Amino acid sequence: MKIYADNAATTKMSRKAIDAMLPLMEENYGNPSSLYEFGQKAKEAIEGAREEIAGIINADPSEITFTSGGSEADNQAILTAAELGKKKGKTHIISSAFEHHAVLHTLKKLEKEGFTVTLLDVHEDGLIRPEELEAAITDDTCLVTIMFANNEIGTIQPIREIGEICRKKGVLFHTDAVQAIGHLPIDVKADNIDMLSASGHKFHGPKGCGFLYVKKGIKLSNLIEGGAQERGKRAGTENVPAIVAMATALKEAADGMQENTAKQEKLRDRLIEGLAKIEHSALNGDAKKRLPGNVNFCFEGIEGESLLLLLDDKGICASSGSACTSGSLDPSHVLLAIGRVHDVAHGSLRLTLGEDITEEEVDYLIDSVTEVVNYLRGFSPVWRDLKAGKTPFILP
Amino acid sequence: MKIYADNAATTKMSRKAIDAMLPLMEENYGNPSSLYEFGQKAKEAIEGAREEIAGIINADPSEITFTSGGSEADNQAILTAAELGKKKGKTHIISSAFEHHAVLHTLKKLEKEGFTVTLLDVHEDGLIRPEELEAAITDDTCLVTIMFANNEIGTIQPIREIGEICRKKGVLFHTDAVQAIGHLPIDVKADNIDMLSASGHKFHGPKGCGFLYVKKGIKLSNLIEGGAQERGKRAGTENVPAIVAMATALKEAADGMQENTAKQEKLRDRLIEGLAKIEHSALNGDAKKRLPGNVNFCFEGIEGESLLLLLDDKGICASSGSACTSGSLDPSHVLLAIGRVHDVAHGSLRLTLGEDITEEEVDYLIDSVTEVVNYLRGFSPVWRDLKAGKTPFILP
Repeated sequence: MKIYADNAATTKMSRKAIDAMLPLMEENYGNPSSLYEFGQKAKEAIEGAREEIAGIINADPSEITFTSGGSEADNQAILTAAELGKKKGKTHIISSAFEHHAVLHTLKKLEKEGFTVTLLDVHEDGLIRPEELEAAITDDTCLVTIMFANNEIGTIQPIREIGEICRKKGVLFHTDAVQAIGHLPIDVKADNIDMLSASGHKFHGPKGCGFLYVKKGIKLSNLIEGGAQERGKRAGTENVPAIVAMATALKEAADGMQENTAKQEKLRDRLIEGLAKIEHSALNGDAKKRLPGNVNFCFEGIEGESLLLLLDDKGICASSGSACTSGSLDPSHVLLAIGRVHDVAHGSLRLTLGEDITEEEVDYLIDSVTEVVNYLRGFSPVWRDLKAGKTPFILP
Repeated sequence: MKIYADNAATTKMSRKAIDAMLPLMEENYGNPSSLYEFGQKAKEAIEGAREEIAGIINADPSEITFTSGGSEADNQAILTAAELGKKKGKTHIISSAFEHHAVLHTLKKLEKEGFTVTLLDVHEDGLIRPEELEAAITDDTCLVTIMFANNEIGTIQPIREIGEICRKKGVLFHTDAVQAIGHLPIDVKADNIDMLSASGHKFHGPKGCGFLYVKKGIKLSNLIEGGAQERGKRAGTENVPAIVAMATALKEAADGMQENTAKQEKLRDRLIEGLAKIEHSALNGDAKKRLPGNVNFCFEGIEGESLLLLLDDKGICASSGSACTSGSLDPSHVLLAIGRVHDVAHGSLRLTLGEDITEEEVDYLIDSVTEVVNYLRGFSPVWRDLKAGKTPFILP
């Protein structure tokens, strides 16, 4: 059996999205900035995509700026708030300890430039407390940036409440919605969101394409200077095929959301239940306030990396909390943020289910993970010591 | 007849590039940062593309950083040189008056931060003079950024000489090679280039994908912060399909370059000869030191915009020097930089030929442009005044 259970990392492009993309690569390849009809058709295609996307999140088309992805959108949103803040002499930013690195590293950069950053505690359940956010806001605060749903443990923040507090206090609110959009209903007006980042390839759209929603009246700063594309706010020839494919994929995701969510949540809970039977294991993040396809566990006494490699042998694509991309052995900053100790955080597994997941596949996942965890524990000196009572168990 | 003569704006993707892209969208869609084999295959695909591209410009694969396009690459290169310069207390940058806006606007931003910018004269032929560059370099100079070939008039700068001067003086040399790469031979070592920007969609690759070559030993600054992709220098999930398609297109362009150039130059010269017969017209930029497919003319007494619209009716996609994208009526900064007065610069036409251009098509271009220019002049009050001797002709 082959199961791709790493949909938080990237998703397979939908057939509809590919089909929307192809004619714009093969035939209607004009540059949208061109005057002739062939170019204007490309312009119409991206404006149609802009309207489609805006409609889905209850925004105005003029509030959507296309970017090369979620990271760029995060960078540009935070830069914008920082520049606006600086003009008013406000240099305090509030975020959370387990944001995506596109947010955290940008904040680090701003700290070097004199900004102060408060990272809210995300508690054991992976959720910030709105009252703690409210208490953290000062007269100096220019931005609150809290992700909609976490990329590792899938917990969904109380976005509407956060937005309400920010509105009340007159502070800009940005949310990295890369994991949420296409999977959760989003209404930027009702949710009181000022800026929102999204990435196409997380909802069966193309890689290399995302967008930034910015509420009317907020003057966007440029991250990439140059031509006058995107109302002068994002230079570079528009990636027409990818933009149109992204809108197509988002429409498809929005249309199928209710049905998919119901199905995924049921299978997610079945998977959680099955994996919870493994002794000395624990689900990471709140069991219910999480993305419909996200399951994230820690298993004591093993290494996440070995787990992944053995699951790969069984045809399962999964990921660990460990920072694979950096090649470092540091455990996930997300798991540390929810209070997992170093050793436990190392033995983590993230399974993110697609919309086409079946009960049979979930059962195969349960059986495979159980088998591999037991196998690895069989020759783990850490596990031997735990079992022998030389070191105490941390997970129940 | 339908003729796409705006290949400097964007090009049609090659069949080979699309075919290289499709399996990475349809099947092998893994995230290159993933540990499992399915992700590692994606990693191998982008590393293969990196080697291919590096080989073509005589660079090391580790010197290639993938970006979302030429504008991003230009921004990142200039930011890098500025930050390195600042550390050494050097804040003077030399560029030319007719660079792409991705360069000029980035330099404007740096001026606000305290940098000083010298823009070299590009003279009537659209070429800088190396001795003027040498004279402009001071002990405070941290960067020289001169485009390889101009995007409007196609003139090719003496890059190797410029690079030699920069090496001798110990100043970083960046070149925006967006229009040149895939169309002219480039050898970053022989050409003494420290940094080079490229964009896939200008050589029959995909939109939304480019790269930055940065010589070993130069510490790249991040424009987009976040994940550890691209050795930590460019965050965001890699656009695997586009990267591979870009490499495929560049390989194809490099392989066919000698043959294509010979053919294009011949037809370009035929087109120039034909259009030069229109009275009171002038070729913009040096007649020989220009891109093989670039033809750019000014026609006195008419507006470029009307010219484009009427050519569009004849099935011809062309562009003018005017800044279409900004919606402004300002004439091209490129044409002003080579000394065209405002009124003359307004009547400009850029025809950029593809590799598949035929003699028959060139003759159709000549006939159509001649006919449309004469037609427009027929009811142009400016032309009437010129003809009546009320105002003097500027072009011979």
